[in-house]
Amino acid sequence: MTFIERCHLAWQQQDSLLCVGLDPELSRLPSSLQHKGTPLEQIREFCIGIIKATADHACAFKPQIAHFAALGAESVLAEVCAYIKDHHPQHLLILDSKRGDIGSTAQHYATEAFNRYQADAVTLNPYMGTDSLQPFLDRADKGLFVLCRTSNPGGDDFQMQTLASGERLFEKVAATAQHQWNRQGQLGLVVGATYPAELSKVRAIAPDLPLLVPGIGAQGGDLVATVLAGQMTKALQTARQTGLFINSSRAILYASSGPDWAAAAQAEAQKTQLAIAHVAG
Amino acid sequence: MTFIERCHLAWQQQDSLLCVGLDPELSRLPSSLQHKGTPLEQIREFCIGIIKATADHACAFKPQIAHFAALGAESVLAEVCAYIKDHHPQHLLILDSKRGDIGSTAQHYATEAFNRYQADAVTLNPYMGTDSLQPFLDRADKGLFVLCRTSNPGGDDFQMQTLASGERLFEKVAATAQHQWNRQGQLGLVVGATYPAELSKVRAIAPDLPLLVPGIGAQGGDLVATVLAGQMTKALQTARQTGLFINSSRAILYASSGPDWAAAAQAEAQKTQLAIAHVAG
Repeated sequence: MTFIERCHLAWQQQDSLLCVGLDPELSRLPSSLQHKGTPLEQIREFCIGIIKATADHACAFKPQIAHFAALGAESVLAEVCAYIKDHHPQHLLILDSKRGDIGSTAQHYATEAFNRYQADAVTLNPYMGTDSLQPFLDRADKGLFVLCRTSNPGGDDFQMQTLASGERLFEKVAATAQHQWNRQGQLGLVVGATYPAELSKVRAIAPDLPLLVPGIGAQGGDLVATVLAGQMTKALQTARQTGLFINSSRAILYASSGPDWAAAAQAEAQKTQLAIAHVAG
Repeated sequence: MTFIERCHLAWQQQDSLLCVGLDPELSRLPSSLQHKGTPLEQIREFCIGIIKATADHACAFKPQIAHFAALGAESVLAEVCAYIKDHHPQHLLILDSKRGDIGSTAQHYATEAFNRYQADAVTLNPYMGTDSLQPFLDRADKGLFVLCRTSNPGGDDFQMQTLASGERLFEKVAATAQHQWNRQGQLGLVVGATYPAELSKVRAIAPDLPLLVPGIGAQGGDLVATVLAGQMTKALQTARQTGLFINSSRAILYASSGPDWAAAAQAEAQKTQLAIAHVAG
């Protein structure tokens, strides 16, 4: 099965476009978990609790690697990824690491993502160009979400530069992904929910690529505008909702700091799933 | 002491512009190390052996994190970094990780580089713009080497795009580093030795920034052209050789696969140091 076929299957089976981001922060853990075991045990229990609570409402999980690396918690990340693969094989496991390096080094990053952490897809930075993506493209069943128009204010600095050809840099990246890199249904793009106008442009350039959309929730992106701008056209739809992985991290993870943290995360995930479906369905 | 002052001190004290890249590959370790202890012990012994053999000829060490991450060898990377800090405090420790993410996540990457691995500087990807660099800029004594014109063929794909303003994207990155980001002497740029003409343009845009130059040795960059194009002007020179960290990884690390691997690495490092000095001095 190609990566894009796996995406469509996940959207169909889960009837959801929600991706739950796993960005654990020791200082924000529920008070009932703090001082319970070692910090790494707390992070593990928290992440697995969030996965259990939200899996029914999501089609993907996206662990963000810096949150584990800063704590020296690579072993926990590996356990969390293995848990997802074992218990929720229908969900996409997207490792958010935004790597980008020359080919011989990129090979090692591909090993990190796909072997060590068993990810189905990885986020990548396009600045170093085609050969920096090649070792990931060589893994034919895996997905590559390439940064295109990111959700942060600094996304303007270079991504919005107009090229001599008249297109913006992020449009050039989207067109390269669609026409040059997507030979085997592996490509996706990262486009922030904070910029629905650009999301709409990206969807026009790349009609059949899955879009990973951070920026709703804590970052203030517009959910309705995101869904309207980002869905695939009716002709390409294979389910009631198709085309997007709408990520929410902090709004779900830290919905409550009390003993009801898992139930609160479940409720927030369900609310987001339904809000998306209300627009998309 | 600011980061740029530390750079000048390293160039003066070491009388070298050579940066030794630490890119350990299990399959390429000297035969005398293979089957000696666990793979992680082999990597550790190899890296520390290389550091001992080459320190007299270098002004910096640059561990490349993917090579450790693919093996689950973060603990070895931390030991290697601690060894450099303890035994060669005058050398710059540059963590080559090419990170780039939104501010709240970048904070964790800054913790990874500067706390966990004690790096003096880190390589960063500029695609996500200013706020993705801010947590690194907030560490006033640390250095940021921002990718500008990279040494790989795919570097052309986006970095060489001409903007509507007439400048190339890599020139825009260089100018932003020089005029906007370098408030406290923290900025440097990554420019490949494979493109000396662009290196010369970057030096003109950023006269006083340190340039980290990969691409000599295995990647085939031109050493003489690199030194001529990349040195600071005489007015800014504080030593016989100033302005560049010329990286060599594989040519030094794998100079011999026999029992003389450390001596061969030493000889190759010395040869490179002298070849640079011959042009620069």
